[in-house]
Parts: sequence; structure tokens; C-alpha cells
Amino acid sequence: MFFKVKTSEEVLKILNGFGSVDEESIFLGEALDRVLSREVTAEEDLPEFPRSSMDGYAVQARDTFGASESLPAFLDVTGEVVMGRPPQGAVEPGKAFRISTGGMLPEGADAVVMIEYCHSLDERTIEVSRAASPLENIIRPGDDFRKGSVIFGKGAVLRPQDIGLFAGLGIQDVHVYRRPRVAIISTGDEIVPISQRPEPGQVRDINTYTLSAFCRQSGAMPVALGLCRDNFSDLKEMVSKGLEAADTLWISGGSSVGARDITVKVLESFDDSEVLVHGISISPGKPAIIAKIGGKAVFGLPGHTASAMVVAEIFLTPFLARLSGEKNPSEDSHVYIEAELARNIESASGRDDYIRVRLDKRDEKLFAEPIFGKAGLISTLVEAHGLLKIDRNTEGLYQGQMVRVMLFKA
Amino acid sequence: MFFKVKTSEEVLKILNGFGSVDEESIFLGEALDRVLSREVTAEEDLPEFPRSSMDGYAVQARDTFGASESLPAFLDVTGEVVMGRPPQGAVEPGKAFRISTGGMLPEGADAVVMIEYCHSLDERTIEVSRAASPLENIIRPGDDFRKGSVIFGKGAVLRPQDIGLFAGLGIQDVHVYRRPRVAIISTGDEIVPISQRPEPGQVRDINTYTLSAFCRQSGAMPVALGLCRDNFSDLKEMVSKGLEAADTLWISGGSSVGARDITVKVLESFDDSEVLVHGISISPGKPAIIAKIGGKAVFGLPGHTASAMVVAEIFLTPFLARLSGEKNPSEDSHVYIEAELARNIESASGRDDYIRVRLDKRDEKLFAEPIFGKAGLISTLVEAHGLLKIDRNTEGLYQGQMVRVMLFKA
Repeated sequence: MFFKVKTSEEVLKILNGFGSVDEESIFLGEALDRVLSREVTAEEDLPEFPRSSMDGYAVQARDTFGASESLPAFLDVTGEVVMGRPPQGAVEPGKAFRISTGGMLPEGADAVVMIEYCHSLDERTIEVSRAASPLENIIRPGDDFRKGSVIFGKGAVLRPQDIGLFAGLGIQDVHVYRRPRVAIISTGDEIVPISQRPEPGQVRDINTYTLSAFCRQSGAMPVALGLCRDNFSDLKEMVSKGLEAADTLWISGGSSVGARDITVKVLESFDDSEVLVHGISISPGKPAIIAKIGGKAVFGLPGHTASAMVVAEIFLTPFLARLSGEKNPSEDSHVYIEAELARNIESASGRDDYIRVRLDKRDEKLFAEPIFGKAGLISTLVEAHGLLKIDRNTEGLYQGQMVRVMLFKA
Repeated sequence: MFFKVKTSEEVLKILNGFGSVDEESIFLGEALDRVLSREVTAEEDLPEFPRSSMDGYAVQARDTFGASESLPAFLDVTGEVVMGRPPQGAVEPGKAFRISTGGMLPEGADAVVMIEYCHSLDERTIEVSRAASPLENIIRPGDDFRKGSVIFGKGAVLRPQDIGLFAGLGIQDVHVYRRPRVAIISTGDEIVPISQRPEPGQVRDINTYTLSAFCRQSGAMPVALGLCRDNFSDLKEMVSKGLEAADTLWISGGSSVGARDITVKVLESFDDSEVLVHGISISPGKPAIIAKIGGKAVFGLPGHTASAMVVAEIFLTPFLARLSGEKNPSEDSHVYIEAELARNIESASGRDDYIRVRLDKRDEKLFAEPIFGKAGLISTLVEAHGLLKIDRNTEGLYQGQMVRVMLFKA
């Protein structure tokens, strides 16, 4: 049974073998956090015309050379740039146009003098008390992005400012990878829907909700197929359905050896099926199973929520990034925080231990407090802020040691 | 004009004066990232019955005391716990029931011996090679949460495992704060909708898209009101509409002094209006305006996207957390990363400078590379991974110095 037990590194490498979902075109306004499926090139200069970056006067720089408070330059104001309109006329030598931030620079002008350095003598004359160098306070065409330049590579995850750049270039539709669809099955003869009052011996379906929320958090779309009894034919039918409906399938439950055996038998019963991983040398989460059926990854996750979530954080996070088409899916995307370990932790060698920890701030110092408790207790996860990895080559960690805690997304 | 210029700290304190939105009841499956508006108490024990946390045999612990490989205890197997059913009968002294992980512990039993330490001699007899202590491998009623205990405080942001706990307790509807609605107005005579080809002097509406995405990223709902010309009556009408439709109103644009003056005049023209902030001692972002109209916060944001986004990161992030009802809204929720500054940065004293920086990894070392460029260039934001604050009491930072970079959310 343990002939396919793999280390974390081996599992991550196996997951690298899967590809991403296909693309779709969506409206820019919906593109936050989505992943670009194509390289994007600017099809025009941004901006397309020279603009002032200050309120002031558009001038010929050389007319201000040598100007100072004691020896100001005098210029004739012969025009004003109206926002949103091309300037009427050009700035001749010795002349100036009033201009506002963002206004289009008139012909002839090559600099803008900030209003702070200009003093109106009368309706038509200003005194300039500081020299402007050519191009000062001017944004030139293409200063932001030049026509033809690559603005985003494939696999970029779009942030608010990135959406803003698309808007600036007039790109209303963007090609992104579809949100991956994840079919979720919760197995176990003891599980009842949360709408139902459990009888003695029964418990409510926690994992469908936890795993669905985990999917959403990673930008994927859960397809909750519901509960499945621990028998071959029911599970086989549901797995078939899930493989049709989604890009990957996650089966949670089967904490008992018997139930796990059924899951493996069902997965092996499909044509074009290969069980890639049967057990991972981590704790909790060891009984996890990974198979490939018709090119799709199928995960058998432990029934205990805490175990399932450790497997999800460590393996499903990069797997979903890969499925989503992100640029560097195997780069660890978790946020880590340094803290002082509040007590000794022993650890068995030969497996990576993931300890749930609570972060406590005392006297401006951050402490990582291990939460010991059975993986069957969801409270251990609810009270935790993150996970602390104890490498399989380490026998434990000492109180007082500085450790890096992998934070749960909040 | 600058009589109401405030420091960052003063602005954050002013924003603390605003309250949160009201609550609504939603289905658990939609509750990820939502903020609880009420304390939540467990209305039953979780679990409600004693369960095994291992595959093995339910026994009376004292029957195994002293058992070892060389001197095993012999027990009669008189029953089996079927998953999802109450056990049939009780475990008598000298007897054992087969039980799977998650199974309900039978009457009489007070421990579970792991299957690894049990050896079947025949159909009805096992040999136990290790002593079990009372309660070993057992989850007792209420071990996860006790009936009547508080499981979440008001203001908690729900994570996947928190959703799981609600599911476990059968709580299908949760009381959460509404998502705050943010009305967004983009002003400026030079701005055209992104669907329109700009004429010379015109540019497309970047800020509606950037700010809407920023809202979504923080869990708020943007209500984009569209473009507004730079004149008093149009803006007044649109501001009235925005105040009716939303919990807060953000006006971006008006980079020129004249346009800013119109914004202030409009805000002052409302009954029950107070301009609280007129300028903030930060760069970029100095021209920001904050008013309170009918109890709602109205923000006048700079027109330059980079300036608007700095104001958003620093002030609108905690403001939205407060509006959303989060527990510690004034705690900085940004993630920071340490990096080595790649070059000297000068900074004017008297204002906090926020430098956009790109993070570069070279030789396993992370460098923060300042991006110098006008705030009117959106490329400076698109190329940046985060912001570096230079405090107003500091004259600059040196190349080689370790700095903390505030990361943009990805």
C-alpha cells in the first residue's frame, strides 16, 4: 500500500506535469485577479500627445534660461490650453500659454514652468523667477508605454493598476485563463448535509464547505457534487460526473482504511487512469492520494478537515496556480512571518510535520504558539493563524528559536 | 488653502471617527472573506458524541494495562461500529469492538487501540501488544467546541476553516456586515470613456477602473457613476446621486488647482457638510481632500493614478476595513517584505514620501529598486511591486540599507 508514498518535493514535481485550463475573453471591469493568457502589446503610445504634469505656463525653455528671483524673465501670455481640447495656436519665442496639469502641450513649447515660479504682472504678462530646462514638467508621447512595447507577459495576475493601464489603452476585452472548475465530493457513511440534524453517529459535511471556500480563495470555481456513500458504484458514478464537469476533482473523506481502499479502487477502475501518489510523507495529511484520469488530476484528501487543509495549503495552492495559468506556479505564494517559538516541539524524522500555530503578540514581540490537538478537531485550524513546517530531517524545534510561520490567507 | 493640511497620523485618526455599514444575513456558502456582525456561540457540543480518531478497537483501557509485544492482552471481539450508526451494544470487560476513524464510541469503552497494535488470532479474538491509556485516540463530546462557548467574535473575517466550523455546527445563515458600497466619480474635461477614441487633448478614464478594482480587492462594491465635467452643477448633481447610492463617495480627478477648487466648493455646498482634510503631508497624494457629508466620508483623490493609488493604499485600505466592520481596522493589514535598497533616495522633510519600488532577486538577495517617474505615469505603478515609505523626519535612505517594502496585493 505504501509503495507510492512520496516526499513533498516529489509530489510538487508530479503536479508540475499538469497543464493549465483554456482561455476566454472577458470585460476589463471583471478582470481583477484574473490571469492573462496572452502577451499584451500597446497598440498606441500612452499618452498619445505631450502633456503638462503641472499647473503653470507652457514656454520655450530657452526664454527662461538664467531667470531668477532677482532677475526674472518676462513673457507675454498669448493663450490658454483648455482641458480636453487641442491648443489654439503655438507658443512663439517670448510667449507663454497658461496650462493645467494634464493639458496638451502647445506647438512651440518645450517646457512648463510651475505656477509657483510665475507672477502675473498684468492680464498679459508674467514674470518667471526660475529657469526651466527643456522637457521639464512634460510627459512626452509614449513616456508611459510606447506603441509596440510589451506591457504584460502571459501569466500575469491583474492588479488594480494593471486594469487601469488596460483602460488607459482602451483595451476593453482581455484574454484570460478560465477560472478552473473544481469538482468536490465529500464521502463517508457518517456524513449528513448541513441542513439535516445528525443522528447519533452522524456528523455534518464540513469538508464541502471548507474546500469550496478554499477554491474560491484561490480564484477557482467549486462545483460541489455533494455527499457520497462509501461504496464503489456510488463513488464511481460521482467521480465520472465530476471528471466531466470540472478540470480537477477532489474527493475528501475516507479517513478509515476501508474507505480509502474504495477510493483507490474507484480511481484505478477508469481507463487511462494512473495512481501517481499513494501517501505523502507529511503529517497531518499522509493518506492523500493523487491520480491522473484522462489527463485530469484527481485528489483523494484525508477526511479530517485539518489534514485536508494542510494538503490543500501545501499542494493544492501551487496546483491551482498552475491550472490557472499563473506565471510561476511552483513559486511558493504564501506569506511568511517571523516569530519566536513559544515552546519545544518534537517531531518524528522521515516526514515533514506541519504544526498549526497561533500568533500571540506580547511586549511587542510575536510568539508562535503551537496548537497541539488531533487533526479531527477543526478548532485547531480555527484557532490557528498559520502553519509551521518542521522538515523531515529535523528532530524538532526549541522554545525561543525564531521560526517562519506560513500564514493562512485572511 | 492649506489650513487643513494634515499629517498621515491625523488623517488616520479622523477616519477612525466613521462607523461601519449595517448587517445582513447570508448563506454560509457565500460567506468567505465576509465580516461577522455578531458574536457567534456554539449551540451544541462539537462533536455531540464520543468518536474514535483512529482505526482500531474500542476497549476498556484497563484491560490493556501492562500489555506489550512479549506479553499481549487477549480480547474478545464482540461487535463492530458501523459508520454513521450508533453502536449496537456495549463493550464489556475483556471485550472489544472494531471501530473506524470517526466512528461513535460504544458504551463501556474508554479508549481505542490503534489497529497497528492489534493482531487477529481468529474471527473473534485479538492480541493487543500495547497498553492504551483512558481516553487515548478518543475525541470527547465538546472537545472541538463546547455548547455555549463563543466561537467567533464580532468583526472576524471568515476563512475557509471558519466556514467549515459553521458547517459543522449546522449554521447555514450568518450575520455579516454588508459589503460597503463605494460611489466612484471620475472628473476632468479631458477624460473620455474607454470605449471612445480620444481626440487630441483627451485621455481615457483610467481611474474609474483602477479604483473599482481596488474596491473589489478590499471586499467593497464599486458603484461607478461615470464621468463628470469640471463644473459646479454637474458635479453637485453627481455627488448627490453618489451619496444616496453608496456608503462613501470617491471623486478622482481635478489635478489642476481650478478643478480642485470646484470639488471643494461642491462638497462645502451641502448641508451637514464639513471639510475635514484639505491636503495631506504625503507625496504623491498631497492634494487629497476628505469631507463628511451627512455622516458619510467623501474623498477627493488626486487625478494622477499613481497619486490616487498611494492615497488608496494608505488611507482607503483602513477606511474600508472600518466601514466593513473588521475587528481591528486601524491595524496595518499590508504585508511587508525586507529588501536591500538598490540606490540612494533623497527625500524632502516635512512630508512622508511613498516611493514605488520594484523587487529584484539577484544572487538569492532581494533588492528594492526605486522607480522614479512622474505620478502621471501609470507605468510607475504597473512596474512596481509595492511602496517604500520615507518618513517625514528622514532626509533620505541610503543604497545598501535594509528597508521594509509594503507589498501591493497580488
